[in-house]
Amino acid sequence: MSSKEDLAFAERLADAARPIALEYFRVGTPADAKPGQEFDPVTAADRGIERQLRSLISDNHPDDGVLGEEEAERVARNGRTWVIDPIDGTRAFIAGLPTWMVMIALSDTSGPRLSVLDQPFIGERFTGIAHDAAWLSRGGSPERIRVRQGVTRLDDAILSTTDPGLFHGDEATAFDAIARQAKVRRFGLDAYGYAALALGGIDLVIESGLKPWDVAAHIPIVTGAGGVITNWRGGTCQAGGQVVAASSPELHAAALEFLKPATV
Amino acid sequence: MSSKEDLAFAERLADAARPIALEYFRVGTPADAKPGQEFDPVTAADRGIERQLRSLISDNHPDDGVLGEEEAERVARNGRTWVIDPIDGTRAFIAGLPTWMVMIALSDTSGPRLSVLDQPFIGERFTGIAHDAAWLSRGGSPERIRVRQGVTRLDDAILSTTDPGLFHGDEATAFDAIARQAKVRRFGLDAYGYAALALGGIDLVIESGLKPWDVAAHIPIVTGAGGVITNWRGGTCQAGGQVVAASSPELHAAALEFLKPATV
Repeated sequence: MSSKEDLAFAERLADAARPIALEYFRVGTPADAKPGQEFDPVTAADRGIERQLRSLISDNHPDDGVLGEEEAERVARNGRTWVIDPIDGTRAFIAGLPTWMVMIALSDTSGPRLSVLDQPFIGERFTGIAHDAAWLSRGGSPERIRVRQGVTRLDDAILSTTDPGLFHGDEATAFDAIARQAKVRRFGLDAYGYAALALGGIDLVIESGLKPWDVAAHIPIVTGAGGVITNWRGGTCQAGGQVVAASSPELHAAALEFLKPATV
Repeated sequence: MSSKEDLAFAERLADAARPIALEYFRVGTPADAKPGQEFDPVTAADRGIERQLRSLISDNHPDDGVLGEEEAERVARNGRTWVIDPIDGTRAFIAGLPTWMVMIALSDTSGPRLSVLDQPFIGERFTGIAHDAAWLSRGGSPERIRVRQGVTRLDDAILSTTDPGLFHGDEATAFDAIARQAKVRRFGLDAYGYAALALGGIDLVIESGLKPWDVAAHIPIVTGAGGVITNWRGGTCQAGGQVVAASSPELHAAALEFLKPATV
């Protein structure tokens, strides 16, 4: 199967996720639930999307595996696994903010090979083929995106993490040292931070505690756009955990200097 | 002039701001500037919008005043002042994130009476008439929005602030005490946090160090949607400074308990 065909199928999955996600966005929230009748829209959206995507995958690619947040892993019989986070940024979702993402990646023995990051409310879709190319579309034709060029130093960098309070101990020390040097800090983005890095807005994303499905879809898009994404030791990050993405190898190396002592 | 006519003119101002803002969004950033040829897209957008809006106001309402971020105040001859922040969320703007806002309010002797919060990239427009009603439109007809109902305690609340690192001393102590109790914390939003409160997504926004143009447009939208917005003493906040907005009077009171000792 060519990457082009696989990416088209990944987009078909993202198309199927859109109406399910939007059905639950900005509707009744946990606070509206009646006593004894708990209604959690993000859980309903998460489960509904993953169920639908698993069904499409097993109908069309029965030997492919699926690794998702909501259900047990279906082990691949052909080395190809779809890695899915139905709604990344659940806190943004419940707060009515349009920065959550549907994350879909196809991994093979070389790691995540291609992916889609989809924001259904804005109608933005990021796609990528690892170390090759990345695109952004808003309904029309996809346009190539690239990381910002020429940012090699921390004091020129726009830095993002989801919540600085999620770092503890050595991690917090390392992050604070980098944050003090960065030109601009942005918080609260989850997946959207990596998308913004790929389109040339953000230069450096630092996170920890990620699951495989929180990071798989970022790898093809960040590397396809010319960026670098690894764990805090500089190795592959598809397993999740501590992740750092940068718009240039020099900036990545500058961040690793601080992050390496905090690796687990 | 009726509120309806004034709000229509405020929307005309927001319409005029849109193409100017979008012309500079996600284009060359400071990092692309050639040495000696500094190009700052957010400053260009800020100045271009404010100039255009001042011109429209003086052509159509020559006796109205204008208070904006970029130029000196034009003092009103009739008690009516337009309060403008051309791009609120400049760090989001330069990072390519779609959560910046164009803020336009009309104040009279009673304070900000009506306003528009516009997000041109998403195409979302929030409008409000103080203590009366608030609406959200995305191209089509405006729909009434309301704050979330029934959140009265900090431990049920979704809390937002732009950057917790902006609080120092007593302010940081007060904010941390509230943040530890909140159900969910969201960072990085600037004006979008108040818009999300008005539409029922976020329950509590706490900030300090705001300028008059950072807050004026929030007052009609938050109170129009049924929320409460004051300074940390519980008084009017149109002057800026320390601001707290809440989805219920009970939640507002619970937050003030912690914030009052940190008032300046």
